[in-house]
Amino acid sequence: MIIKSTSNFRIKDIKRLKEKKFQKNSPWFYMEGFRILGEAFDHGSILQTVIWSADLLKNEYGLELLEKCRNQGIELLEVSESVFRSISLKENPQGMAALGKKEHFTLADLAPEKELLIELNEIADPGNLGTIIRTADAVAAQGILLLGDCVSPYDTGAVRGSIGALFSLKIVQTSFPELNRWKQSQLLPMIGTSDKAATDYATIAYPAPMILLMGSERNGLSEDQISACDQVVRIPMLRSSDSLNLAVATGIMAYQIYNSYRGLMGK
Amino acid sequence: MIIKSTSNFRIKDIKRLKEKKFQKNSPWFYMEGFRILGEAFDHGSILQTVIWSADLLKNEYGLELLEKCRNQGIELLEVSESVFRSISLKENPQGMAALGKKEHFTLADLAPEKELLIELNEIADPGNLGTIIRTADAVAAQGILLLGDCVSPYDTGAVRGSIGALFSLKIVQTSFPELNRWKQSQLLPMIGTSDKAATDYATIAYPAPMILLMGSERNGLSEDQISACDQVVRIPMLRSSDSLNLAVATGIMAYQIYNSYRGLMGK
Repeated sequence: MIIKSTSNFRIKDIKRLKEKKFQKNSPWFYMEGFRILGEAFDHGSILQTVIWSADLLKNEYGLELLEKCRNQGIELLEVSESVFRSISLKENPQGMAALGKKEHFTLADLAPEKELLIELNEIADPGNLGTIIRTADAVAAQGILLLGDCVSPYDTGAVRGSIGALFSLKIVQTSFPELNRWKQSQLLPMIGTSDKAATDYATIAYPAPMILLMGSERNGLSEDQISACDQVVRIPMLRSSDSLNLAVATGIMAYQIYNSYRGLMGK
Repeated sequence: MIIKSTSNFRIKDIKRLKEKKFQKNSPWFYMEGFRILGEAFDHGSILQTVIWSADLLKNEYGLELLEKCRNQGIELLEVSESVFRSISLKENPQGMAALGKKEHFTLADLAPEKELLIELNEIADPGNLGTIIRTADAVAAQGILLLGDCVSPYDTGAVRGSIGALFSLKIVQTSFPELNRWKQSQLLPMIGTSDKAATDYATIAYPAPMILLMGSERNGLSEDQISACDQVVRIPMLRSSDSLNLAVATGIMAYQIYNSYRGLMGK
């Protein structure tokens, strides 16, 4: 049966998922784009329901993915072109979207003897979070810790910005006291960035594993957070800018740490 | 005289500037935010008209800036709170915005014996462009070359993303043939990035000055562009991601080049 009405209750539920308040409390999240759907399919039990429209879905990769989902017994919801357009976030929808099941990790799920962890403090911009998730995946970080009042990694903007990299990382929501206890129990070094730090980020070797602590877009790191760091470094800025975009700063730090791990850096 | 009507012709003109088609053909651009306005004030003749509302403008820095503008003879347009809210891009407007005069540079305005130039190919996202302008300013790049069909650096999203760094760089719109002729006449080396390149970006020393060529968000560099480069390097990605966000990739490259210039890198 093809759903042809935008007032169908399933369609209404799907649309609501794109609103922040419903999204926050739902066990599901909305995603769109072949690449993201393909990554979700490859990561086990994330894909729950695929929504598709035969009139719009012409892409070969998409059609193959649809068959794979059908064979795996994933629920398929066929909708009319106009219903799909009413759901889609894109101007030119490609006819395939999905509901995924959110994953929840805690600090106990992390293996602290392994890889880099990136810690973000009160990150507010979903696009920035998605971009940082993509970067963290690129340097094979184990996970991202979200400290305090952060945007959800399942916000549609964050999911889109991550282009599916979301599913290969452990993302843990935590608090500063909880992080501090855990970090101490695991003897994990934490390095923060601040424009007030004396040490240039490009002049030190980085420990493996470690936590990289990045401040919020608006306020940077608090004094308490700076004191909790084993070291604080500064990314130099040469002209009038006194800050970089948070996703750019995190990318510069993450790759510097990766280069340090593989022996490709100064000093 | 305080403008109290949103149908005032000056107010209508200002609102139009936020629409892409009007913005493109106008000699003016719209900006908002104390930091951006302060930077524009510091850069000579950019600030043309300041729009402000006494009911909203309470910030001390903003009030001082308003006085400085008054003393410089910059046109001040006082408007009512409701008119300001109708113009503003912000949910909580701070009562001060401005019109700036666009600056136009050509390749002939560049000093090719100086600093890094960053070249962007068909960049479409205004936020990405603003973020890259901010990064270019941070590493003291001389300018940004926009190749082909790029978003305008005076798009409101780009201006906002640059947080005023826009005014300390020369931004040149050019074409690939024109760039090629100029680069050859100036003997300027050009280094591109591509995920297909064999050379790891962190293993080479970078020439000063040079052009850093970054591909478009969607398509990367064309084969012609790759052949025009003196060298092409790859930023390694370790897991499923096959690309980074363009602003992040540009940040990683720009800081690697800066670190190379100051002798802080591998090999």
